[in-house]
Amino acid sequence: MSANNAFYAQSGGVTAVINASAAGVIETARKNKSKIANVYAGRNGIIGALTEDLINTGKESASAIAALKHTPAGAFGSCRYKLKSLEKDRTQYQRLIEVFRAHNIGYFFYNGGGDSADTCLKVSQISESLGFPIQAIHVPKTVDNDLPITDCSPGFGSVAKYVAVSTREASLDVASMAKTSTKVFVLEVMGRHAGWIAAAGALAAEQEGTLPIVILFPEVVFDRKKFVDRVAAMVKKFGYCSVVVSEGVKAPDGKFLSDQGLRDAFGHAQLGGVAPFVANIVKQELNLKYHWSVADYLQRAARHIASRTDVEHAYAVGKAAVEMALKGHNAVMPSIERKSNKPYRWSIGMADLRKVANVEKKMPASYISRDGFGITARCRQYLTPLIKGESYPPYRNGLPQYVALKNVAVPKKLRDSFTI
Amino acid sequence: MSANNAFYAQSGGVTAVINASAAGVIETARKNKSKIANVYAGRNGIIGALTEDLINTGKESASAIAALKHTPAGAFGSCRYKLKSLEKDRTQYQRLIEVFRAHNIGYFFYNGGGDSADTCLKVSQISESLGFPIQAIHVPKTVDNDLPITDCSPGFGSVAKYVAVSTREASLDVASMAKTSTKVFVLEVMGRHAGWIAAAGALAAEQEGTLPIVILFPEVVFDRKKFVDRVAAMVKKFGYCSVVVSEGVKAPDGKFLSDQGLRDAFGHAQLGGVAPFVANIVKQELNLKYHWSVADYLQRAARHIASRTDVEHAYAVGKAAVEMALKGHNAVMPSIERKSNKPYRWSIGMADLRKVANVEKKMPASYISRDGFGITARCRQYLTPLIKGESYPPYRNGLPQYVALKNVAVPKKLRDSFTI
Repeated sequence: MSANNAFYAQSGGVTAVINASAAGVIETARKNKSKIANVYAGRNGIIGALTEDLINTGKESASAIAALKHTPAGAFGSCRYKLKSLEKDRTQYQRLIEVFRAHNIGYFFYNGGGDSADTCLKVSQISESLGFPIQAIHVPKTVDNDLPITDCSPGFGSVAKYVAVSTREASLDVASMAKTSTKVFVLEVMGRHAGWIAAAGALAAEQEGTLPIVILFPEVVFDRKKFVDRVAAMVKKFGYCSVVVSEGVKAPDGKFLSDQGLRDAFGHAQLGGVAPFVANIVKQELNLKYHWSVADYLQRAARHIASRTDVEHAYAVGKAAVEMALKGHNAVMPSIERKSNKPYRWSIGMADLRKVANVEKKMPASYISRDGFGITARCRQYLTPLIKGESYPPYRNGLPQYVALKNVAVPKKLRDSFTI
Repeated sequence: MSANNAFYAQSGGVTAVINASAAGVIETARKNKSKIANVYAGRNGIIGALTEDLINTGKESASAIAALKHTPAGAFGSCRYKLKSLEKDRTQYQRLIEVFRAHNIGYFFYNGGGDSADTCLKVSQISESLGFPIQAIHVPKTVDNDLPITDCSPGFGSVAKYVAVSTREASLDVASMAKTSTKVFVLEVMGRHAGWIAAAGALAAEQEGTLPIVILFPEVVFDRKKFVDRVAAMVKKFGYCSVVVSEGVKAPDGKFLSDQGLRDAFGHAQLGGVAPFVANIVKQELNLKYHWSVADYLQRAARHIASRTDVEHAYAVGKAAVEMALKGHNAVMPSIERKSNKPYRWSIGMADLRKVANVEKKMPASYISRDGFGITARCRQYLTPLIKGESYPPYRNGLPQYVALKNVAVPKKLRDSFTI
C-alpha cells in the first residue's frame, strides 16, 4: 500500500507565525516520506478541500518552505467558514470524503482557533460515523490566546510583543509632547472577547506603576467616571497617560463601546473604532489633547517584531501534529505546557479535541488588578516569557523578504464541482 | 576666557531618531571641550530656555548618551511653541538673552522642522539686532520630509520604513482573508500637507503594480468615483486591495476628508480619522468587507523598525551642526546631499536658514503616477535608499531597552521667573 497524503489548511484570522506552523507540518512530513507521501494544502482553508482546490506543497523548494518560518499571514489563504454538524449538513462531509478519497488523504491537519477546533473535531468523527479512515489533528493558532488547555496559543506572543513594544514607544512619544500638546494617547487593540492582547500593553512598563498606562479589558464593564478619574490621576502624576483599549470593551448596557451609532453629516451610520470613542470621552470630560491609534491588522501581521518564543511554539505544534498523526492519534491538539518561568521552559502536550472545541479561555480574575485598569504580578509572570526573544526576517532594500509560494494546484480528479 | 556652553533643544513632533541627533550634538561637543564646556538641553524645547529650565547633559554617562542613538521620542521633552517676531514680542528675546548670558551660552542648536527653523532663524538674529553674541544652528528633523534644500529630513526614513513594512505585512494578511472575509484594508498615515509618508506605502510592492495598493495623497484632491473605481478594479484583478491614505487628503470643497462632522447618538461632534471614512465609502459603494487602521504615533515612535540610513543621517546632522558652529557659522542648517543612488552615497551640506524657514517641500508632480494613486519610478528611486538598513535597539525580556536620562536640572541663576 502506498503512503497516504496529508491535508493541511489554515483557518480564521491569520497571524504573524501561522506559516511557521505550516513549515513545521510540511518539513516534518517530508522527513517521513514513507508514511506521508505529500502534503496538500487547502487553498483558502477548508474551502479548498470542499472545492477540490488543493495546493501541492511538494512543488515548493526546501528553502521556500523554510522561509515560511519568517513569513506572516496565511501562505495558502485562510477562510472564515464553519462546517455545520453532521446531522445538519451531511453533504459537506460526504464531499470531503470524496475529495480525500480521490487524493488519497489520510491525515487532516487544521491550523486555527476555537471555531476551527470544532471543524477539526467534526472531521475527526468522519472515521467513525461515515467509515472513512482519517486522522484529524488540530494545530492551535489564535492571536486572541483564548484556546483552553494549552498554556498559550501560537500567534498570541507576537501580537503581545507588538502591543508591548508599540505602547512603550508611543508612551515615550506622548511623554515628550505632553508639556504643550498631546497628553493622552489611546491605542485600540484586538481581542473581541478576551483581554489577553490588551493586557500585553501593561508590559510596556518594566513594572506595574512605572509608566502611566490604563488598560480597558473586555472582561471589565466600562465605567466612564472611574475611567476618567483614572486618566486624570495619571496625567496629574506623570503629565501624560497611555490608554490601551480592547476592541471588545462593553458599555454597561452590554453593547460594544465601539458600536455607538456614529452618523455622518447625511445621517449615514459610520463604523467608528473604540479608540476614537474613548479619546472623545477624554476630550469631553478632561479637555486634554489626545491622539489615538487603531492597530488592527498591523498587530497580527507584524512578523518584523515577532516573538522568538512564539515562532518556536508555532513551529513545534506543527511538527508535533504530524508526529501525533504518525503515532495513530485522532481528534487531538498539540498544546504548549509551561514547565517553569525562570528560566522559561516548555514542552509539547496533547489535548483532547473535545475539550478544546468551542471553549473560550478568558483572562482569569486573578490576572486583572483590583481597580480593573492593570495587570497583576501573576499576569506579568505569565505574559513575560511569551514575548521573549526576537526573530527578525531577512531584509533586502530595507524591506523584509517574505516568501510567496508558487501554490501549484493539484490536478482535479473529480467531475463534480461543489458550491459553498 | 572660558569656553562657552551650548544650548540644545528638541522642537515639534518627535521622531524615532531625533535622539540620535541629540547624541550627535552632545558627543561631538564632548570631543571639543576646549570650545564647548557643556551642553545644556532645554526641558521641553525652547520653553526650557525661556523658563530657565535647563538640563545638564554633562551629568549623563557616555553610555547613556550613546543609547540615545537607539531611543525614540524626545529625551529632553519637546514642545509646540513658535517665537513671535522680534518686532512683535521683544520681551521673549530679551529673556532668552538673560538666560543665555546667565549660563554662558554661546551656541544654540535647535532640532526641529519648518516652524522650528523659523524660531532658530529668529534666535540667530539676536546677535545682530540685540548685540548678544550667539551662533544658532538648525538641526533638521521632521517625519513629514517637507524641509526644503536637504535631500530628505531625518525622521522621515524611519516612518517611511514603518509604513512600507506595515503595508507589506497587512497586504499579506488581507490577501489571506479575502476569499471569505476582508477584501479591502485601509491604513491611515501622517502627512498633513505633503504625501511623502503615504508614498512610502507604495514601497510595499517590489515594483509598481505587483501588489494592489492605492495611495491617497494630500496633493491630489479626493475624487470619490475615481477612487471607488480604482479599488473595484484592484479587487477584481487581485481579489483584495490595500489603501494607504494620508491624514491630509482633502475633499473637493478644500476641507480635510477626516473632518466630516461625525456625530454620536446624542449629536455630539466626534473626531473620526480619515481611514474609517474611506473604509465606509468602500462599504457603501462596493459592499466589500473592510478593515482599517490608524498608525498615528506608532509610526513615528517605531524605533524598533527604524531605517539605519535615517539613524545615520540623524546622527550626522547633529555632529555637523556642532562642527559648523565651531567653524563660526550662524543661521545655517546641515543638510543631506545625495551623491548617488546605486550605491546610495550622501554627504553633509550646509543650507542658509533663511532659505529653509517656513518653506514647505511638497511631493513633486513627477513623483505621483498619472492616475494619482501611485508613485512613479523616479519617486521609488528617491525613496528606496532612505529606508535601507536595519538598526535594532538592544532587547531585554522581549522589550527594547530605551534609555531614560537623569535629566538633572542646571541650578537657576536668575531671580525672575518667566511665564509662557
